[in-house]
Amino acid sequence: MSSSSLLSVALEAAHAAGQLQRENLGSDLAVNEMLQYDIKLDLDVRCQTLITDIILKNFPDHAVLGEEGNAGNPDGTTQWIVDPIDGTVNFFYGIPHFCVSIGVKVNGELVAGVIYDPNQDETWAVEKGSAPTLNGKTIRTSSRTKISDAVVTCGFSKSEEAILASFERYKRISLAVKKTRMLGSAALALAYIACGRLDAYVEEQISEWDVAAGRLILEGAGGTFIEQPSRTHEGKMFIVATNGKIDMNPYL
Amino acid sequence: MSSSSLLSVALEAAHAAGQLQRENLGSDLAVNEMLQYDIKLDLDVRCQTLITDIILKNFPDHAVLGEEGNAGNPDGTTQWIVDPIDGTVNFFYGIPHFCVSIGVKVNGELVAGVIYDPNQDETWAVEKGSAPTLNGKTIRTSSRTKISDAVVTCGFSKSEEAILASFERYKRISLAVKKTRMLGSAALALAYIACGRLDAYVEEQISEWDVAAGRLILEGAGGTFIEQPSRTHEGKMFIVATNGKIDMNPYL
Repeated sequence: MSSSSLLSVALEAAHAAGQLQRENLGSDLAVNEMLQYDIKLDLDVRCQTLITDIILKNFPDHAVLGEEGNAGNPDGTTQWIVDPIDGTVNFFYGIPHFCVSIGVKVNGELVAGVIYDPNQDETWAVEKGSAPTLNGKTIRTSSRTKISDAVVTCGFSKSEEAILASFERYKRISLAVKKTRMLGSAALALAYIACGRLDAYVEEQISEWDVAAGRLILEGAGGTFIEQPSRTHEGKMFIVATNGKIDMNPYL
Repeated sequence: MSSSSLLSVALEAAHAAGQLQRENLGSDLAVNEMLQYDIKLDLDVRCQTLITDIILKNFPDHAVLGEEGNAGNPDGTTQWIVDPIDGTVNFFYGIPHFCVSIGVKVNGELVAGVIYDPNQDETWAVEKGSAPTLNGKTIRTSSRTKISDAVVTCGFSKSEEAILASFERYKRISLAVKKTRMLGSAALALAYIACGRLDAYVEEQISEWDVAAGRLILEGAGGTFIEQPSRTHEGKMFIVATNGKIDMNPYL
């Protein structure tokens, strides 16, 4: 399987789900589960089903691992890592900042990724070994090297423990940088660093589907992505992503 | 002067400046002043000049009070309160979340306001006594009454003192709400509360040009806007804006 045929199916699936999101933004939405710091929508499931159908129609032997459950061949050596709506809370409240994130792994290695923002009609795409693109143009991370010039995004995750664990770190970062932002989509945060709009991203708890595509896009654009097991949530990751030039270590 | 002729000039000026912003987003930008927690661009000045020219061509006797300086007749009883780019840091870094904000006061009272987001092509408009609109459709604040359902945005302003003063409050709010957001435009924060995308906004230091239009839009849509002199910056305001239903007092 060439990575370009994987990429073209990832693009088709991401754009189809994004179209469904555009059509439903601002409408009354069915809530499947209301959590203290998160929301699960029926539309998450519908978008994942749409994406899964497109993948498995093209590649019936592949595995699909998504935020809303798994499908396809669980033993498939090619795995699709899908977040159908990254930024579901934003979507639910009508804040036009969310995306579709689709990464593809072959034998455990990321080989292709797509992030699609249906509000701005922006598509980030990458194949391993090639430069990542935004709407077809090659992108690079920013050239900023000083923390005082940086705009940094921090995620506070989805539990009280994670919020508290993040706070002192967030305070140190806020005082050191030009500005902090909390935009509400992990995948778009990585895409934004990849094209120089942000300089770093620190998140206490994250799942693979949030960051698989973004990681490959970011690393291909010159950025760094470091993950550790989360200290506040088993099975999740603590991540630090940067433009490859700014040292976040003194502030972690 | 009818408020509708004021509003139509405000719309013309906001759309002209927004068009200039769209054309310049992502290009190399001349920086007039680089501050520790803020940036001043030459494009801020160019946008304000464009807006001022349109206002004074129509109303030579009016006063224009803007973030980038004043123009027109300083004794004019009609004052235009202009923020040519609200969210300049976002603009400079390429984050597509900023706007033009134009409020109009007659004899000290707000009578019209426009906020224009050139990225989403979204126009919020209001005349005193009429319902505010978003792209021509009447808007209302959200119906959420519980803090635990709320998405709240907090501004950390532009000084170390303000950042530190904001922190404990921000922590209390983070633990109580569904999510916090830091999007980087005060005017859009008010516009988003007015149309139900956010539920509250707390900012340690703000200037009149950031909130004049947004306040009138928000109050017309059922929201509340409370200002006090900032404790950390003379001449600036501490503000609490809500959907009119959620009580932020226990968290301030």
